Amino acid sequence: MTALTPQIRDILNWYASDNPGTRASLARILNQGKLGGTGKVVILPVDQGFEHGPARSFAINPPAYDPRYHIELAVEAGLNAFAAPLGMLECASEVAPGFPLILKCNSSNSWATTKDQAVTATVDDALRLGACAMGFTIYPGADAFFDQVEEIREIAQEAKAAGLAVVIWSYPRGGEISKAGETALDVTAYAAHMAALIGAHIIKVKLPSDHIEQEDAKKAYADGDWSTMAKRVAHVMQCCFAGRRIVVFSGGATKGEDSVYQDARDIAGGGGHGSIIGRNTFQRPRAEALAMLAKIVGIYEGQA
Amino acid sequence: MTALTPQIRDILNWYASDNPGTRASLARILNQGKLGGTGKVVILPVDQGFEHGPARSFAINPPAYDPRYHIELAVEAGLNAFAAPLGMLECASEVAPGFPLILKCNSSNSWATTKDQAVTATVDDALRLGACAMGFTIYPGADAFFDQVEEIREIAQEAKAAGLAVVIWSYPRGGEISKAGETALDVTAYAAHMAALIGAHIIKVKLPSDHIEQEDAKKAYADGDWSTMAKRVAHVMQCCFAGRRIVVFSGGATKGEDSVYQDARDIAGGGGHGSIIGRNTFQRPRAEALAMLAKIVGIYEGQA
Amino acid sequence: MTALTPQIRDILNWYASDNPGTRASLARILNQGKLGGTGKVVILPVDQGFEHGPARSFAINPPAYDPRYHIELAVEAGLNAFAAPLGMLECASEVAPGFPLILKCNSSNSWATTKDQAVTATVDDALRLGACAMGFTIYPGADAFFDQVEEIREIAQEAKAAGLAVVIWSYPRGGEISKAGETALDVTAYAAHMAALIGAHIIKVKLPSDHIEQEDAKKAYADGDWSTMAKRVAHVMQCCFAGRRIVVFSGGATKGEDSVYQDARDIAGGGGHGSIIGRNTFQRPRAEALAMLAKIVGIYEGQA
Amino acid sequence: MTALTPQIRDILNWYASDNPGTRASLARILNQGKLGGTGKVVILPVDQGFEHGPARSFAINPPAYDPRYHIELAVEAGLNAFAAPLGMLECASEVAPGFPLILKCNSSNSWATTKDQAVTATVDDALRLGACAMGFTIYPGADAFFDQVEEIREIAQEAKAAGLAVVIWSYPRGGEISKAGETALDVTAYAAHMAALIGAHIIKVKLPSDHIEQEDAKKAYADGDWSTMAKRVAHVMQCCFAGRRIVVFSGGATKGEDSVYQDARDIAGGGGHGSIIGRNTFQRPRAEALAMLAKIVGIYEGQA
Amino acid sequence: MTALTPQIRDILNWYASDNPGTRASLARILNQGKLGGTGKVVILPVDQGFEHGPARSFAINPPAYDPRYHIELAVEAGLNAFAAPLGMLECASEVAPGFPLILKCNSSNSWATTKDQAVTATVDDALRLGACAMGFTIYPGADAFFDQVEEIREIAQEAKAAGLAVVIWSYPRGGEISKAGETALDVTAYAAHMAALIGAHIIKVKLPSDHIEQEDAKKAYADGDWSTMAKRVAHVMQCCFAGRRIVVFSGGATKGEDSVYQDARDIAGGGGHGSIIGRNTFQRPRAEALAMLAKIVGIYEGQA
Repeated sequence: MTALTPQIRDILNWYASDNPGTRASLARILNQGKLGGTGKVVILPVDQGFEHGPARSFAINPPAYDPRYHIELAVEAGLNAFAAPLGMLECASEVAPGFPLILKCNSSNSWATTKDQAVTATVDDALRLGACAMGFTIYPGADAFFDQVEEIREIAQEAKAAGLAVVIWSYPRGGEISKAGETALDVTAYAAHMAALIGAHIIKVKLPSDHIEQEDAKKAYADGDWSTMAKRVAHVMQCCFAGRRIVVFSGGATKGEDSVYQDARDIAGGGGHGSIIGRNTFQRPRAEALAMLAKIVGIYEGQA
Repeated sequence: MTALTPQIRDILNWYASDNPGTRASLARILNQGKLGGTGKVVILPVDQGFEHGPARSFAINPPAYDPRYHIELAVEAGLNAFAAPLGMLECASEVAPGFPLILKCNSSNSWATTKDQAVTATVDDALRLGACAMGFTIYPGADAFFDQVEEIREIAQEAKAAGLAVVIWSYPRGGEISKAGETALDVTAYAAHMAALIGAHIIKVKLPSDHIEQEDAKKAYADGDWSTMAKRVAHVMQCCFAGRRIVVFSGGATKGEDSVYQDARDIAGGGGHGSIIGRNTFQRPRAEALAMLAKIVGIYEGQA
Repeated sequence: MTALTPQIRDILNWYASDNPGTRASLARILNQGKLGGTGKVVILPVDQGFEHGPARSFAINPPAYDPRYHIELAVEAGLNAFAAPLGMLECASEVAPGFPLILKCNSSNSWATTKDQAVTATVDDALRLGACAMGFTIYPGADAFFDQVEEIREIAQEAKAAGLAVVIWSYPRGGEISKAGETALDVTAYAAHMAALIGAHIIKVKLPSDHIEQEDAKKAYADGDWSTMAKRVAHVMQCCFAGRRIVVFSGGATKGEDSVYQDARDIAGGGGHGSIIGRNTFQRPRAEALAMLAKIVGIYEGQA
Repeated sequence: MTALTPQIRDILNWYASDNPGTRASLARILNQGKLGGTGKVVILPVDQGFEHGPARSFAINPPAYDPRYHIELAVEAGLNAFAAPLGMLECASEVAPGFPLILKCNSSNSWATTKDQAVTATVDDALRLGACAMGFTIYPGADAFFDQVEEIREIAQEAKAAGLAVVIWSYPRGGEISKAGETALDVTAYAAHMAALIGAHIIKVKLPSDHIEQEDAKKAYADGDWSTMAKRVAHVMQCCFAGRRIVVFSGGATKGEDSVYQDARDIAGGGGHGSIIGRNTFQRPRAEALAMLAKIVGIYEGQA
Repeated sequence: MTALTPQIRDILNWYASDNPGTRASLARILNQGKLGGTGKVVILPVDQGFEHGPARSFAINPPAYDPRYHIELAVEAGLNAFAAPLGMLECASEVAPGFPLILKCNSSNSWATTKDQAVTATVDDALRLGACAMGFTIYPGADAFFDQVEEIREIAQEAKAAGLAVVIWSYPRGGEISKAGETALDVTAYAAHMAALIGAHIIKVKLPSDHIEQEDAKKAYADGDWSTMAKRVAHVMQCCFAGRRIVVFSGGATKGEDSVYQDARDIAGGGGHGSIIGRNTFQRPRAEALAMLAKIVGIYEGQA
């Protein structure tokens, strides 16, 4: 353990209201891997087996059926943290003791009959597995949103008291939100803001489009220039307490390498803290994935 | 800390059934700022980011994206307290240690599919953040009203035991209440009375119109003169235990300066305890907002 | 504190299964005021502000907006107890320390969208306010009845363990019960019996009419003479464990003085334990109310 | 307290997994009254006031309005136990300290709008009243069945830990079960089996008819001879862990004396452990009821 | 107790995140009976009385009405564990102290009006009965699935803390899953994967058909050869953390002996850990069942 860099010291100051344990958990993530100390982060999340099923997630790269594969990939690629549901962490936690784990504690699946998720794990699970954060998905706009907020309220309070960090995936959907609206700039910014307001330390949203969904919000966006992704990322950061919360972005389904790199450049350019990138890594052969992750990490290191 | 003024001593006597901790929390609010000791209060609430989204709330005055902006404004303007959701207090509480904070612990949003709110924070959150009160919104008339009352019952009991005060925003809506009825005099007075009955120390309602909504209530209002706002405010005060509860009023959306000042004069004239004023301050440039708040405070100081 | 009268000793023996604390709480009510020691009681309840709104309840007699007015009235009239929701007791409990208070811990209101009530206060609230009983309303016949029974089960168990008494207002309504049926003799007797079975120490019902509502019950009532109110009261008493529970009756909305007195004579004549009388007192000027209450108390003292 | 008879020792061995306290509670019931030590039991249940109302239950024999009447009847008739809701035990428990009481802790009523019951009392209530068992009704087939099972799971676990016994009334109804099916042999046997599987020590069902309700079950019953009640009782016993659970039967509404005696002979003949008999006793004059109970007890004593 | 075999040591390493108590509970199952130490298991489950009723389950072999029959059969056949609902274990646990018991803690029945199960027992029940695991059924696809996951989350966390193992029966049904889909390969594999992700130590699924149910999954299965059961079993194992979870399979309703043996050969051939076999044993005469189980055990011993 070396001294904190000024970047990390600055970030930890944003969380002055948290106890030393929670700040240490954030520091563990921020100091891990190749980006350790830079204030940038790349996180590997693997919950697609829950969301889409194992074969759709892993058949294309069979070694990925083994939970240990992912955490080894995250370690070898020099990433900051690994996020996964309970069973996967139970199975793989011994692979790299001390590597930052985020216990993704709610999940949906392909057969869900409501826009909701089931809470699958607890703060006590995270503590016994040595995880440093709880991960939780909310669906702003869905009928279940209020219930989800009340679930994460309980989990977050318990997590913060136990010295864990709280990571919220904020995915707008349902209710009056259109399909295009799910990634609209105003909707994404609002979703990120609500995650911050309910107490997330780290917020995860999808990269926003330039669509403005809400009639009532159009005036507020009328004078802005939202033509580039970097500007849209910057707006999301602004909506997260003027940039005083860690925000990471995802690009969605597997896609071409170039667009993955462009995403990272846009996130860095807009002042975002990093990428959370799953299928684009583990659905590629290991060597390709490592090469891609090295390049992404390089973009954040160089800010370009 | 100086001796209590007679006005504050009188107000605290209304809360003789509370423990010394809760009375001290009320005293902290009542003794804070330029109006400290007068028995009048001006409170800055910032939960519009939750209710309407960040851009609609703050784009007009970008420094307001930063939670610290608001608490600094409240301190500099010499207000009595700052009310906000969990994340905002977590982010800004270190700005002015000791300044009275109200943890607004439930919130709705633009996409709510029911007339309800999610409980987003707890008494333990308030205690660790050094807040002196829990803020909670109820919707008299809505299907969710009974559930909301049972939520605040639990929060209020825990808060009072922990030496915190309880502030209830009482906003009639839903069910058989018409749009005009939401600010009708009889409805507002009834909503304020119920907040008092369920144990609020401080009650917040909107300034009432002269409309009488309920057929059954018309007789009771038939002989009164409700032509001026001050008289209507006085009636609301009467319905809050004959004036033995602190009641603050809001005027709603951003509007002209003059009408904001007139609101304050009417509140003071009717014996109300003060204003709770959000968008009309933080949606103006900082200098304008400070000037406006200085004038409002002056109205309460001079009772005119 | 003087020795218990034979009447009170006899009544307390009905509650032999309760702990000394609960029996002492019952004794406090039974020994209070002009009827202290007689085994008869007159109770002042003020929850109409919750049920009907403040103006409809108090505008006719403005001093009644102040919670202290009511408890002072109850003390001066020499009544046995005062029943009210949380906030009213919080505001007025210091007026007459030691006067028996019943914390009415659930309430409905004019805008309720279901036939139910919200639980607004707890046993801990009663204990910190020095109250000696919890008051709770059930709606036999309503969809919410089972839930209400389970709510009062929890409250009653906690109250009895803490040495408090339990008062149940049993108001049939909803489901298959007709409007006339709500005060039918068979329905009232059944409602009172269920209150006894779920563990009430004191049962409050409305004075029953001679209507028999249930087809299945008609045979059981066929041979009885239900022509006088006193006989109907006697039947309700019989249905409350052969008279081994304290039962008080109300007459409903404000009405002529004579009928109020006749109610008391009928209650006394049928062996009921007394009156619970709200609007008929506080909606009259104070002097009139005191005169009326003196006369009612006199009826119970003289049993005529 | 005399030594256990071989019969009781044998029965208690069926409950080897229970703690000594629970076995002692079962022993208290089995050793009580004229049938004490024989392994046969007759239990008096009085919850008809809750289910049907007081007048329909007791008007035909007015002394029965007094809870003490029933427990005195049970003692004088030399029965094994008395089962009743909370209030009735609270009122009557002092009549015969030590007589085995079963706290019937859920109840329905004539106005129920769903096929369910409300939980009206707790294990703590049973303990403070000196009861030795919790009684609970389930409705196999009803929409509420799963909820009921989860309610009795919690109550049973707490009861067993506290040294109490668990008595389950298993009454099929609702869903796809026809009226005739409610007492069909297959349905009754299934209902009794489920009560055993969820952990009842004592199971109460109605005497089964020779009707087979379920299409899927007809094959399993095709080769049996179900022409006599004794054979049907024997099948129910077989379905209760091959006779290793105490099972008692009821015959339903008031009926002729002869058929009551025949029921007892059939129960004894089929190996059942006894009768649970309410309305047939307390709706007859006391002397008649005592004579009838003496004769029933005699049938079990003589096994004929 | 002898030293662990390499096979068992290997399996226990998969559960490195569990406490020694839970690993010991798994070891108790893995070391029991004729297959002890081989890493293969045969488990006897008897919950058909709950699911289908007692007569349909046991009339064909009447000794099976007695819970002791089954555990004696499991012991004599040299199986690894016995799984049953609460009452059956309460009744039979004294038969073979120390034999591994799995408390099946939720159940449905023939009259269920929703696709769900009732939770019938607790971890405390398992502990007092000396069981070494909790068994729980989930219905992926059903409306109740999220609730079921949250139920098993609480039970599993408590079980793991208490040193018990967790066995999940994963039975897809309901929602958009067709009847054929309930045993489709993709559905079965997904259902097994979700059981692993929510933290099961042992997973039980039905043997999969070669049907692919989900349109979205067809591509992932397009290149595979799913023509033999052994290959399909191998895929299910792969989907359970690349074979690092114990998975057992059932074949369903009673069927010919040959197909039962073929099932075992296919399970062993695909790398599955064993059979869970109920009706095919206890619905045959005891001697036949023992002979059949001996042969099944032999298949696993010889892997052929």
